[in-house]
Amino acid sequence: MERRSFLKKAGAGLAGAAIATPALSQPAAGGLPEVKWRMPLSWPKIFDTAFGASELIARRCAAATGGKFNIKVFPAGEIVGALQVLDAVQNGTVECGHTVSYYYFGKEPTFAFSTAIPFGLNTRQQNAWMYQGGGLELMREFFKDYNIINFPAGNTGAQMGGWFRKQVKTAADLKGLKFRIAGLAGLVMAKLGVVPQQIAPGDIYPALEKGTIDATELTGPHDDERSGFYKVAKYYYYPSWWEGCAELELLVNIKAWEALPKEYQAILEAACAEANIWGQAKWDMVNPPALKRLLANGVKLMPFSNDIMTASYKATQEVLDEIASKNVKFRKVYEPWKKFRDEQVQWFSIAENRFDNFMIAAQRLSQQAPKKKK
Amino acid sequence: MERRSFLKKAGAGLAGAAIATPALSQPAAGGLPEVKWRMPLSWPKIFDTAFGASELIARRCAAATGGKFNIKVFPAGEIVGALQVLDAVQNGTVECGHTVSYYYFGKEPTFAFSTAIPFGLNTRQQNAWMYQGGGLELMREFFKDYNIINFPAGNTGAQMGGWFRKQVKTAADLKGLKFRIAGLAGLVMAKLGVVPQQIAPGDIYPALEKGTIDATELTGPHDDERSGFYKVAKYYYYPSWWEGCAELELLVNIKAWEALPKEYQAILEAACAEANIWGQAKWDMVNPPALKRLLANGVKLMPFSNDIMTASYKATQEVLDEIASKNVKFRKVYEPWKKFRDEQVQWFSIAENRFDNFMIAAQRLSQQAPKKKK
Repeated sequence: MERRSFLKKAGAGLAGAAIATPALSQPAAGGLPEVKWRMPLSWPKIFDTAFGASELIARRCAAATGGKFNIKVFPAGEIVGALQVLDAVQNGTVECGHTVSYYYFGKEPTFAFSTAIPFGLNTRQQNAWMYQGGGLELMREFFKDYNIINFPAGNTGAQMGGWFRKQVKTAADLKGLKFRIAGLAGLVMAKLGVVPQQIAPGDIYPALEKGTIDATELTGPHDDERSGFYKVAKYYYYPSWWEGCAELELLVNIKAWEALPKEYQAILEAACAEANIWGQAKWDMVNPPALKRLLANGVKLMPFSNDIMTASYKATQEVLDEIASKNVKFRKVYEPWKKFRDEQVQWFSIAENRFDNFMIAAQRLSQQAPKKKK
Repeated sequence: MERRSFLKKAGAGLAGAAIATPALSQPAAGGLPEVKWRMPLSWPKIFDTAFGASELIARRCAAATGGKFNIKVFPAGEIVGALQVLDAVQNGTVECGHTVSYYYFGKEPTFAFSTAIPFGLNTRQQNAWMYQGGGLELMREFFKDYNIINFPAGNTGAQMGGWFRKQVKTAADLKGLKFRIAGLAGLVMAKLGVVPQQIAPGDIYPALEKGTIDATELTGPHDDERSGFYKVAKYYYYPSWWEGCAELELLVNIKAWEALPKEYQAILEAACAEANIWGQAKWDMVNPPALKRLLANGVKLMPFSNDIMTASYKATQEVLDEIASKNVKFRKVYEPWKKFRDEQVQWFSIAENRFDNFMIAAQRLSQQAPKKKK
């Protein structure tokens, strides 16, 4: 297949041809060249927080270049499957893709640091680690083996623990529980006696309805509401101790990146940072009203008990230490990451935590206080 | 003075001439024009978290345009005084400036919403309000009266409460206290019997040393350490209940903005968002080691008591309600802002707070646990 004509067919189905050079047409006289990229996503349009971040990147690159740097966005499954984004970028069948890298945990557990580690960093801590704490440098070194340069490009807050058909009160209640969860958290759950289930998103609802699984997790109230799980599982637990945040990443084929004009590199990098902060803002905006609607629909909101949290924390440390003891790539990131996390948790325990906790306590008190007479 | 030649002297001292059109030289053949802007700051270089965000904006605009969109950064006092940035942008003596808008509280209290309100939003909540919750639209409508369009462009986390020469245990201990604090927080403090003092940054240290003032606040450990207050006031209180965050803003003269090519507008907007997330990451990175050094220097780290927090919370509600009852501009922002804050506090009390609190508790437990034998 002729390379250039293949690339022009931006909307066509994915062929296996590996191409890494970007689609360059003739540069405008005296100006910068037209560049057409394709960006498959790991999510469908309905997950509009993540999808909005993807669109923002494309829109910003176009606006900043008068439409010359054109990135076409493809929802999951249109040209690349939700879990094949890494492969497609690595092979150069697309120039970039927007995904969460822990989907590729099965290839190599080190990918998880780019998204979330159980009992790991919260959103701000993840940003601090990535942008300032050496995280981006460590992860870029790791991604080099996949012909990829990665950019933080979206995030959630601490996610919800998920939907349970019946209550789980102690760690003992987790034994034998069929829970739809994958990756690193699945390994930790298995240590606690959970039977982790890998089920494609479209198949979760019927499995939960029939009782083929006992529980599932997704993200937060806004996305969860759209998935309808509350209709068949009433107990909504929090937090997702396995996702204190979940960073989205733009993965860019390294040759496509290197072929970009420096100006477009600068624009893409800024657009990803913008998508990162936009995504967390959107997450915080859309979730409160969704949670209220879920509660109005009879959902039982419940914190995981201290017993479950503590047992999970212990199991997590064991799993992380086991992987690190056997896997040099993982250990190379894990050791500085763990030190960073511990310093951040200590730092957040001072002004940040006292401020947040007081605001919450004050709100609860004011809600309990008798209303003033009019 | 001839307008064009004045503008070319980007490094020259500030003259009073009001110019609002941007400095446009001849456009490169077929390309976008060269634009030279000046950006005075409200901080000196030594406050490198804020200053780094300022430089990032300028650097990104240059990199994204091959150097054609050139913004020259001027630390506080070089061409415009730290507290004159708004005036200079409003008058068009400069095209833009990087500042914290609550410095202009004296002109109009509504400016404070762009930076911080006592017992207001934390960093993520401020971003959610600005980018997604209608905050930016409300504030831009307000800024129009000053010929300005504003962009969030940096932030801190919850700040520290400041440096006290002696302990303050209850709200009664605040009576008569000479505290260097200004703006909205100063009004609240006055209600509690504090005597708020307005002192220029360079004069704080000698005033605190001599006991002319009893206490001062600044930002967080990193900036505070550089100011040396720990040498003359040992009690370091937290949190700054008046600054759950402190958003930095790029203020842009509206005519200069409108004269920008659309591409440069898009680049500047993305660069400000990038500076926003970069700034909060830097804040979280540099503060933990600074706090450790301060503690090693004998600083006594103390939370404000519940008595002080509660009395301050009550006084804050009174002050905000009083201003809102008299000031239509303030009320127009305050009412939706307050509703937004209350929803956010409720939302953060679920997964986010349980996650953060557990991480902190787990760390404390693991520090108390006996070390394993080697």
